[in-house]
Amino acid sequence: MSSTAEQIAKNARFAGNVLKTLSNEDRSTILYKIHDALKASKNDIERANKLDLAAVEETGLSSSLVKRLDLFKGDKFDTMLQGIKDVADLPDPVGKVNFARELDEGLTLYQVTSPIGVLLVIFESRPEVIANITALCIKSGNAGILKGGKESLNTFKEMAKIINGTLADNEKTTGVPVNAVQLIQTRQDVNDLLSQDELIDLVVPRGSNALVRNIKNNTKIPVLGHADGICSVYIDEKADLVKAKRITVDAKTNYPAGCNAMETLLINPNFPSWTDVLTNLAEHGVTLHVTQEVKDALKEQGKLTGETADKVVDANESVDFDKEFLSLDCAVKFTPTALDAIQHINLHSSKHTDCIVSEDKPNAEKFLKAVDSADVYWNASTRFADGFRYGFGTEVGIATSKIHARGPVGLDGLVIYQYQIRGNGQVAGDYLGAGGNKAFVHKEIDVKTVTL
Amino acid sequence: MSSTAEQIAKNARFAGNVLKTLSNEDRSTILYKIHDALKASKNDIERANKLDLAAVEETGLSSSLVKRLDLFKGDKFDTMLQGIKDVADLPDPVGKVNFARELDEGLTLYQVTSPIGVLLVIFESRPEVIANITALCIKSGNAGILKGGKESLNTFKEMAKIINGTLADNEKTTGVPVNAVQLIQTRQDVNDLLSQDELIDLVVPRGSNALVRNIKNNTKIPVLGHADGICSVYIDEKADLVKAKRITVDAKTNYPAGCNAMETLLINPNFPSWTDVLTNLAEHGVTLHVTQEVKDALKEQGKLTGETADKVVDANESVDFDKEFLSLDCAVKFTPTALDAIQHINLHSSKHTDCIVSEDKPNAEKFLKAVDSADVYWNASTRFADGFRYGFGTEVGIATSKIHARGPVGLDGLVIYQYQIRGNGQVAGDYLGAGGNKAFVHKEIDVKTVTL
Repeated sequence: MSSTAEQIAKNARFAGNVLKTLSNEDRSTILYKIHDALKASKNDIERANKLDLAAVEETGLSSSLVKRLDLFKGDKFDTMLQGIKDVADLPDPVGKVNFARELDEGLTLYQVTSPIGVLLVIFESRPEVIANITALCIKSGNAGILKGGKESLNTFKEMAKIINGTLADNEKTTGVPVNAVQLIQTRQDVNDLLSQDELIDLVVPRGSNALVRNIKNNTKIPVLGHADGICSVYIDEKADLVKAKRITVDAKTNYPAGCNAMETLLINPNFPSWTDVLTNLAEHGVTLHVTQEVKDALKEQGKLTGETADKVVDANESVDFDKEFLSLDCAVKFTPTALDAIQHINLHSSKHTDCIVSEDKPNAEKFLKAVDSADVYWNASTRFADGFRYGFGTEVGIATSKIHARGPVGLDGLVIYQYQIRGNGQVAGDYLGAGGNKAFVHKEIDVKTVTL
Repeated sequence: MSSTAEQIAKNARFAGNVLKTLSNEDRSTILYKIHDALKASKNDIERANKLDLAAVEETGLSSSLVKRLDLFKGDKFDTMLQGIKDVADLPDPVGKVNFARELDEGLTLYQVTSPIGVLLVIFESRPEVIANITALCIKSGNAGILKGGKESLNTFKEMAKIINGTLADNEKTTGVPVNAVQLIQTRQDVNDLLSQDELIDLVVPRGSNALVRNIKNNTKIPVLGHADGICSVYIDEKADLVKAKRITVDAKTNYPAGCNAMETLLINPNFPSWTDVLTNLAEHGVTLHVTQEVKDALKEQGKLTGETADKVVDANESVDFDKEFLSLDCAVKFTPTALDAIQHINLHSSKHTDCIVSEDKPNAEKFLKAVDSADVYWNASTRFADGFRYGFGTEVGIATSKIHARGPVGLDGLVIYQYQIRGNGQVAGDYLGAGGNKAFVHKEIDVKTVTL
């Protein structure tokens, strides 16, 4: 098996080396061709997708899985097709000059964006990811190895056949290598691919946190993504009650299964209307896992009654503040100051998205500066953490790592840069620091004037 | 041991959380204080450094190690001190707004640079790295854990005492936490620190490739640096002989132990004067490890005589093209086209720095685009790959990884970004895609007009 994985990775590396030299037009042209081919084969894909759905329904797996698997629910298939064209039409992320500097006369340094190289994308049940990732890889000049889950096997096989066929048919005319995207089926051991750290540059998992965690634990290749989305909202002493109620309800109930949903609510006990925030959440069907302190205070204020009483349960303090409920549940505790909230978040959050609700600008600025998460908000719902909402056009995923790219990641997260020097025979030995007497000029060049 | 490493990492995490909220002035002030304290203790440091040197001389280790260890050779100590002030005076790398976008009225997205968090810096014998890295960490708002090698133990201990003392004395006035920089001595097991991947965000090794390789193989924390520097120069068919001779001699002989020195020379056999390039290298004392094909061609042209004959040896083809000689040795082979050279480099180079010598612009552009290395040059010596030469002021190291930062890495490589949203109570549920009807505005804001 291992040699197969190595061969796949080598094929990708070679394809990537060619892909990175092609023009934006070449890369976009093949995406249009893939779009047309998938569109023309809609019936075949639908047939394959129905086989996958039938198999899943037989096993009695969850309806949410079926929903994710069904490529023909509503306008999902057409949206997928449109997505390929949208990516094709985006500005070229490759070959952009970030900065240029004259080192000396006729010796110029350029920092130019370039593809990362080879991406391994592992996903579970959403078959539209195949088209989505194919488009993102080719547009960004990266070779992609796509590994689908067993639930979507038939759909995957059918779409792989069409994409591979389109690549093969157009290799000569567009120059895009047939191995630019390799679609690997479930028989292949994913661990063999994850061990190809010399050839694969980045792993992008798309799926459950169990999947992401498993991948992170089993590879030396950098992983772009997030396992958990433990997002917190902190209601400051000087919060606006209307904002606090609206934000907490939206953050928790708009899409509880989303990674950007609120899982922890931190309350400043000096905020006079804090009980209203909790009773309002209870009215919206949220079960509040509260600390003893919060429970006592609710009781003391006579609020532990009716609907609220039904929705208040004891928090298991050792686990609930590190938990992604992904349901209409929320852990609640007091943090007596903004600093306490910051410290709680920096210890317990998954570095995804955290929010302060406050009218106190210094406290809010302190929060924005101190919280160590990819996305930090002041008076806005955590649910805004999303590539579409940020205006990135398309999204690779949301990253919670600390290097390379954080938060919603667009095409920019799939490129890196190279330094180019263009000279006319200069040698280091002529310059100060390497034995010579010449000094460097180090004069910035306006990138707008640069054409390479 | 492991709990100690965890405690050190936790201390760093907490210190980093505070450090990232401080102003540039606070961070620069403490660097000036450290500068002054080290300067005032010059005699104590020199005494400690002499102990280390005596110990090394006793073991009879290499003179190059002694050279690296000696902090008082020439103006090294003063240069180190000046370096602290230079870093302090650099523009603030933290809190820079990369872009700003209006999502809707009163709802604004900012991408703002922020520290990575906690850096673990492991180095071998150069004691000036202590001051250098202390300055870089504090300036970039990152907490640093510095782990020195046993050769520099006494110097390290003395400098650690001074830096720790300065941090402790000034914690109250500057706000910089005493654990902003922790200097860990050799007794601590480095593997325990390398296992703290939940708390440490980036490892920066400074030392031999054995050190880097060992670290890369023993941690899940991302590593910024390079193990090998296998740099190639390709002499194209239409090369200029003067440039080819100057560049190859500089790239190989200016500092053969440097990671940016040429280790492989690829020659287009159609370049008429190719033998002159080789005889010139031989005259400069370079031993040429040539393939059979090159040897035969040299013989055929009657060039395998005199000095050249003495300097030409048979390449061990299976290893010499993947080898970092770090000496006046170079592997030489023919590549009949620029594409062959590119393919050789993408297979064998360590993705550090590679150069094409050519007067053929299309070939050169192809090379710059296709070679998958951090630094790619056209008609300039590989020795220019260096932070000082690039004008970065200071350099963390040279990275050959494919994500985050490549090539010479300055302060910019020690920061990442966070997304901030500043709103006035907006919720996602009001907008298209999350249940509402409002559309996003997505209007770019000129960052020059932004003050946070």
